[in-house]
Amino acid sequence: MSARMELLEKLALRPAPDACKDRKMVLLVMDGIGGLPDKSGRTELEAAQKPNLDKLASRSDLGVLEMVDVGITPGSGPGHLSLFGYDPLEYAIGRGILEALGVGAVLGPGDVCARGNFCTRDAGGVITDRRAGRIPTAESGRIVRKLSEAIPAIDGVRVTFHAGLEHRFVVIFSGPGLSEHVADADPQKEGLPMKWAAPSAPDGERTAAVTNAFIRRVSEVLGDEPKANACLLRGFSSAPDIPTLGKLYGVSPVAIATYPMYKGLSRLVGMDVAEAGTTLDELFETLGRVWDRYDYFYVHVKYTDSRGEDGNYDAKKKVVEQVDSLLPKLTALNPDVLAITGDHSTPSVMSGHSWHTVPVLLASPYTRFGMSSTFGERSCVLGSLGKIPGPSLMGLMLAHAGRLAKYGA
Amino acid sequence: MSARMELLEKLALRPAPDACKDRKMVLLVMDGIGGLPDKSGRTELEAAQKPNLDKLASRSDLGVLEMVDVGITPGSGPGHLSLFGYDPLEYAIGRGILEALGVGAVLGPGDVCARGNFCTRDAGGVITDRRAGRIPTAESGRIVRKLSEAIPAIDGVRVTFHAGLEHRFVVIFSGPGLSEHVADADPQKEGLPMKWAAPSAPDGERTAAVTNAFIRRVSEVLGDEPKANACLLRGFSSAPDIPTLGKLYGVSPVAIATYPMYKGLSRLVGMDVAEAGTTLDELFETLGRVWDRYDYFYVHVKYTDSRGEDGNYDAKKKVVEQVDSLLPKLTALNPDVLAITGDHSTPSVMSGHSWHTVPVLLASPYTRFGMSSTFGERSCVLGSLGKIPGPSLMGLMLAHAGRLAKYGA
Repeated sequence: MSARMELLEKLALRPAPDACKDRKMVLLVMDGIGGLPDKSGRTELEAAQKPNLDKLASRSDLGVLEMVDVGITPGSGPGHLSLFGYDPLEYAIGRGILEALGVGAVLGPGDVCARGNFCTRDAGGVITDRRAGRIPTAESGRIVRKLSEAIPAIDGVRVTFHAGLEHRFVVIFSGPGLSEHVADADPQKEGLPMKWAAPSAPDGERTAAVTNAFIRRVSEVLGDEPKANACLLRGFSSAPDIPTLGKLYGVSPVAIATYPMYKGLSRLVGMDVAEAGTTLDELFETLGRVWDRYDYFYVHVKYTDSRGEDGNYDAKKKVVEQVDSLLPKLTALNPDVLAITGDHSTPSVMSGHSWHTVPVLLASPYTRFGMSSTFGERSCVLGSLGKIPGPSLMGLMLAHAGRLAKYGA
Repeated sequence: MSARMELLEKLALRPAPDACKDRKMVLLVMDGIGGLPDKSGRTELEAAQKPNLDKLASRSDLGVLEMVDVGITPGSGPGHLSLFGYDPLEYAIGRGILEALGVGAVLGPGDVCARGNFCTRDAGGVITDRRAGRIPTAESGRIVRKLSEAIPAIDGVRVTFHAGLEHRFVVIFSGPGLSEHVADADPQKEGLPMKWAAPSAPDGERTAAVTNAFIRRVSEVLGDEPKANACLLRGFSSAPDIPTLGKLYGVSPVAIATYPMYKGLSRLVGMDVAEAGTTLDELFETLGRVWDRYDYFYVHVKYTDSRGEDGNYDAKKKVVEQVDSLLPKLTALNPDVLAITGDHSTPSVMSGHSWHTVPVLLASPYTRFGMSSTFGERSCVLGSLGKIPGPSLMGLMLAHAGRLAKYGA
């Protein structure tokens, strides 16, 4: 655990003092919000018509977040961990886990997940197509339902399936004594026989045996399928051991997100996950619905990133404008602390994540507001917060909420 | 190796992706560029007429570099290591090595160098003048040539001499089994007998024996010299074990510098060293000549520092103006990433290196430009990069060149 987290944990007031116990903290993440100027010389955020955000900026602290380190482009996992107060170099989230979270899988402690491909195996046991002819997603969904009914457990280990896109799926093994130390059960090339799972460390022996029994059972159940008649598994991993926000700081957090991966990331750090629908409107309505039950609210807007990834400057700008128009629903709740930022930059001129710092706005009664009247990358560089590491935002929000004791006498 | 370097090494794309493999990075170091205001209220850099640098600044990221730590005045070694991406507190370069590099010595792995004085010894073996009457540099050059011919090797160890100023020289021992663990062979005071080399650790035994055989041989060869008839050696040291830039990040770097010490520093981090002549004109011409052969170019301008050390505000300002007039030769090459900065500050009002942060300008297609229209200490403080550690510049340049993978999914 980083020195920063240890200090925060030590200073966190548990329970919250009476004067502060009803204070609400909101972290509104506009995914990939940071941008770069286009030919107009303005970034998407700077160019957007956003009267509500600008008004808020004029009475907020502004700054920029360095999510991982100078020049480092964060993935969504590290970017979010950073916003939640975790040093992203200390708490790494593997590709397998993120994929599992992305299809809505829920991993408990000790669970092991793996990414699966449906594949085609001939009578002699040779893998003739590692992707089963890229069967359509709907087809894959049907096969996953068939398997879920037929294989609820293997050798006392509970089995949970999640369909992915086309030939992809995720399987989760739940039970005592499992381990992620299992090498890929995948020959990698076509025309080779099945490669069976093998332990990559002694404690992976039982999981490898369960995996192989599982793969044999899948072949039995899918024996009459024309294409997807077997499966390959790789990327065995278990959920990282992350201390929860509740345990660390005594907060009661909830995630309000429409995309599975962000719900999953939130569960990893101990957040409840609200049913938030699929639209921006539903997202902001959900916040009001769960308002009384929590004190820390993580609200995730996906589309700023999506439009940035598309390389669509105007569309990204429009998402900012949409969020701005919905912002009154949030501010009407009178959050005591409101941070608005992103998990990384996604400049539409780059069509992808980038290493650039991320603008952040922090509204509370205790700010040195008034340095700028607009929320933008360059106004934030000159803001009262300056540049701070991403993981420092959590401590700042706790401080503004009156949830941290003084350090030393 | 620092966590920052480890992360960069892990993320560095090797080989460079096709889309980025022809991108060129230039680090233009104006030695000691940072300054302080004189009575006019402006620093040398701020006062200089530099239309090209200012134009570049208006479309660049600006910031300031903290080379070592707040309040710490860097020497040239640490300042440059920092710019090359190395934590200067981790990779220390000894005084002996810097002196050796300064006279143009090239040290291979395992070589041991020492700083030498020619001295005067009487018939009884007593040192009567530790500096041999400060013989002129030309005289010292003649003696070094004489020794080079007479003593090519000692006991299988190759010997290389480099003349220094006045009575000073540098000797390099090359061969297997050598060690820098040898105490100074120097009585420190006049009127004492020779102090022979002794190992300071067990593995220095052979080197101490070679050293003493060498000192005896020097006395034989110089027996007929009136003043410089013997030598003293101190500061035994071998080249630090620094992972090269090529190995760390897969870059292909070249140094374009006119002064031996900077060429030497570059060799230590694995740069090729171009023949760059002696003038500023030749320096900038050299860049064009080697342009096709490398992807990272370190260009070193010495005179900003020299004039700062002289305490000559106007002369330092003029060097900036000269560099500005030559800048079009560099920008005409269309570098994809161009960083302009210094290795430390050398305010002419202090006539020496100082601890002040160093202004930096970073030009690329991916900047949040437009925050200032001039390159100066104070415009850089307000720049989009903010203040970053010196060693972070390397990662930033790699990021802008598309040479770093995303961290995490």
